[in-house]
Amino acid sequence: MGGSFASTSTPVALTRRPSRSSFSCLSRVLVLLAAAVVLLVVFYGVYTTYSSSFSSPVVDSRSRLPPRHPGRLPDATFYDEPSLSYAIDRPVADWDAKRQEWRRLNPHLAGDSQRILMVSGSQPGPCRNSVGDHLLLRLFKNKADYCRRHGIELFYNTALLHPKMDFYWAKIPVIRAAMLAHPEAEWVWWVDSDAAFTDMDLELPMGRYQFHNMVLHGWAHLVYEKRSWVSVNAGVFLIRNCQWSLDFMAEWASMSPLSPDYASWGKILKAELNDKLFNESDDQSALVYILLKQNARWGDKIYLESEFELESYWLKTLGRLEELAGAYAAVERQEEGMLRKHAEAASRAYGRMREKLMGAEKRRRPLITHFTGCQPCSGEHNEMYTAESCWEGMQRALHFADDQVLRDYGFRHVDLLTADVIPLPSDYPAATS
Amino acid sequence: MGGSFASTSTPVALTRRPSRSSFSCLSRVLVLLAAAVVLLVVFYGVYTTYSSSFSSPVVDSRSRLPPRHPGRLPDATFYDEPSLSYAIDRPVADWDAKRQEWRRLNPHLAGDSQRILMVSGSQPGPCRNSVGDHLLLRLFKNKADYCRRHGIELFYNTALLHPKMDFYWAKIPVIRAAMLAHPEAEWVWWVDSDAAFTDMDLELPMGRYQFHNMVLHGWAHLVYEKRSWVSVNAGVFLIRNCQWSLDFMAEWASMSPLSPDYASWGKILKAELNDKLFNESDDQSALVYILLKQNARWGDKIYLESEFELESYWLKTLGRLEELAGAYAAVERQEEGMLRKHAEAASRAYGRMREKLMGAEKRRRPLITHFTGCQPCSGEHNEMYTAESCWEGMQRALHFADDQVLRDYGFRHVDLLTADVIPLPSDYPAATS
Repeated sequence: MGGSFASTSTPVALTRRPSRSSFSCLSRVLVLLAAAVVLLVVFYGVYTTYSSSFSSPVVDSRSRLPPRHPGRLPDATFYDEPSLSYAIDRPVADWDAKRQEWRRLNPHLAGDSQRILMVSGSQPGPCRNSVGDHLLLRLFKNKADYCRRHGIELFYNTALLHPKMDFYWAKIPVIRAAMLAHPEAEWVWWVDSDAAFTDMDLELPMGRYQFHNMVLHGWAHLVYEKRSWVSVNAGVFLIRNCQWSLDFMAEWASMSPLSPDYASWGKILKAELNDKLFNESDDQSALVYILLKQNARWGDKIYLESEFELESYWLKTLGRLEELAGAYAAVERQEEGMLRKHAEAASRAYGRMREKLMGAEKRRRPLITHFTGCQPCSGEHNEMYTAESCWEGMQRALHFADDQVLRDYGFRHVDLLTADVIPLPSDYPAATS
Repeated sequence: MGGSFASTSTPVALTRRPSRSSFSCLSRVLVLLAAAVVLLVVFYGVYTTYSSSFSSPVVDSRSRLPPRHPGRLPDATFYDEPSLSYAIDRPVADWDAKRQEWRRLNPHLAGDSQRILMVSGSQPGPCRNSVGDHLLLRLFKNKADYCRRHGIELFYNTALLHPKMDFYWAKIPVIRAAMLAHPEAEWVWWVDSDAAFTDMDLELPMGRYQFHNMVLHGWAHLVYEKRSWVSVNAGVFLIRNCQWSLDFMAEWASMSPLSPDYASWGKILKAELNDKLFNESDDQSALVYILLKQNARWGDKIYLESEFELESYWLKTLGRLEELAGAYAAVERQEEGMLRKHAEAASRAYGRMREKLMGAEKRRRPLITHFTGCQPCSGEHNEMYTAESCWEGMQRALHFADDQVLRDYGFRHVDLLTADVIPLPSDYPAATS
C-alpha cells in the first residue's frame, strides 16, 4: 500500500492538548454565560421599576405616593365626565368598569384589592342631650382607634347631604358619595354613631362574603317567617363598591322621604311587617321589605349573617365584660409570648394569635356593641331603658375598649365605670384581669 | 517509504459531520443554560420572598402586615425589658438604639423612616360649656380628615395619664407614651384640641428640620429680647421620637405639678418673663424659660420656626377666608388640570400642584387656625373675646376646611357660617369661588 499525506477518511485522533474546537466551545459557553447574566440584570431592572404595577402583597394602597412623575396629574377617568354627580338622585352607569379603569390607571393609589372604607357620622348641629356630643366624641374616638389599629380609613361625616334624607336615611347619600370618592375601596363598612367597638383586634371574616355585595346582621327565619322589622340591623353593615350597590341604594332610597310615595311606604311597611312600631317608612323596615318582596332581584347578593356577630345588642353583653376580660387574660397567661408588650403597629399579629388561642372558648368579646334604643344625641331613649343605664352601659363599653387600646400605651382604667387610668404593672395581665 | 495505518503525527482532518467533541460542547452549553434559568428562578423567588426587607419606596409602613410567618410573633426588643415603663416619671435610656433595633427587626412595620404621628386629645369627662363637646367633636373630625388625606396616623387621647399633670401639662405624658407605643414614628406632631386645620392640602416643610429635635412656632427676638411668654406656641409643635426628646420632656415636666417645686416655678417664671399673666407655672412659659436659661443644653436642637406659619392666630385670618378661597379658585382656573375632579386618594398630588401654582401669591390659607383664648370646652374664654365671636370663628374655620374635604365628595357649604351643604356644580370652581 502506498502511503500518502492526506486522507479524508483518517479517524480523528483524540489528544489531550487544547485544540481549536475546545477553544471555540469555551468561548461559546462564555458568551452564553454573559447573556444569562445580562438577562438577570435586565429582569431585575424591569422588575424593580414596575414592581408597583404587579399585584404584590407588600404594596399598601395607603402609601399615598404621588404618581411616578411628580408634575404629572392622573390620567383621564370617569371623574372627567361632565355628567358625573355624587348625589343620590343622579344615577351612575357602568360603575364597575369605571372603577376598574381608575384602578388600572392608578395602581399606586389602588393598592390592595380588598380595601375597606369605614363610614360613620352624626348630625351637623349640637345634640339636644347635654352629654350627647360628649358620647358621640368618645364613640368617634373608639372607631378611630379601631381603624388605626387595622389600617382602615375612616370617613366621619357631619353634613346632611340631602335635606330630605335625614335621621336614619342620611347614611345612604353619604355612602353613595363615599363610593365615588374612594374608587380604591372595595367595601364600605357603615357603622352607626351609637355603635362601639368592644373587640379592638377581631377582624371581619371577609372570605365569607366574596360572592355577595351586601352583608347584614340578620336571621333568615325572622325575615321570611316572622316578617319582623328587627330581623336585620341597618346600623352596621357592609356594602360592596359596585354598580349593584348603587342600584340597590337607589331602590332603598325610593322608600325614603326622597320619594313622593314616602307616606304610602310608611303604611305599606307597617302592613307587611308584623311588628313595625311607628308609622314612618324607616330604612331598616325597607330592607326587610326588599328581602321579602324583591328577593328575586336582590336576594342572591345579600348575605344574612347570623353566625358571625357583626354587632351585638348592648343589654345582652354588657353585664359580662369583666368576665370576658378575665377569659382573655386566662388564655394569654397560657402562652408566654402573648404577655409581651409590643408596638401598636404589631397589634394585628398579636390579635390574630390571640384569636387562634381562644379556640373553643365560648366567652368572646363582641366585635361591636350597639346601643340601639339609647339615642345618645337626642336623649330620646326607648322607654324600656333609663338614661342612666344607657350612660353607664356606654361608659363600660368604651372603657372596656379603651383598655385594649391603652394597653399598648402602658395604661388601663381603674374599673370599667371610671375615666381614671393607672399605669399597667410590668407583668400585666399575669397577676390580674 | 513504507505505508502504515496509524500515525501519531497525522494532521487532524476537519470534517463537516458532527463529531463527538461538538456533541459534548453542545451538552455543556445546554447544562449552563439550564443553570442560568434555575438561577433566574431562584433569584426571583428569593427577591419576592424577602422584598419587604429591602428599603423600597413602595413599601408603606401602614400596611400593617403580620410577620412573614403567620404564627411567629416579633423578635425580642426593648419591649421585653421588665423595667420598661411608659410613664413620664420613669426614665428610659438608650432610646435611640432601642428604636433602631426595633426598626431593624420589624421592617414591615417600620416603613418610611420619616413618619409622623399626630397626637391630640381632650378631657375625659363632658365639657362644662354646653356646646363644648360639639366643637371638640368637629375639631377632632377636622384633624382626622387632614390625617386621612395625608396618610398620617392620629392618636386622639381622652385619658388623664398622670393625675397631677392636668390641663396644658397633660400632653407631655401622652406624647411620652405615644413615642414608646410608636417606635415606627420619627416625629410626634402635637396639635391642641382647639386648633383646626384650614389648609387640607399643605404639608409641613420637614426638610427644614432635619438637624433639630423640636420645632416651635416662635420668634427669636420675642424670646431673647422681649422675654415674652407668647414668644413661642406650645399648642402646635413637632418633637422627634428620640432620647433627646425624652430627656427634654423630663426637664420640661420638672416645672409641672409633678414637681415638688411647682409653686416656686410659678414665681420664677412670672419673674423671668415680662408679660406672664397668671401665677401658676404653665407649659408655654416653661418652654421660653428653658430657651432663655438652659440654652446651652437644649437650644441647638430647638428650631424656632418664624417663616413657616405652623399655626395662626384665629382673629388674624378669619375675616379673610372668602377672599382666600377666591384667590385659590382664581389660580386653579388658570390651569385646566386643576379643575378636574379626582379621588380623595389623589388629593396629595393635586395639592402639591396647587401649591406650585400659587407661586408668589401672598394670600395663603393658614395651615392651622388656632383658637387661643377661646377655651371651647370650659367656655372660659379670654375677656377680649365674646362667646359668640369664638363660636362663629370656629364655624367659619371648620366649614372652610370642610369645603376642601367635601369637594372630593361632591358637596360644599352654602356659606361659611352654615352647616347646610349643596351639591357642587359640575364645573366648580370655574364659575364661582
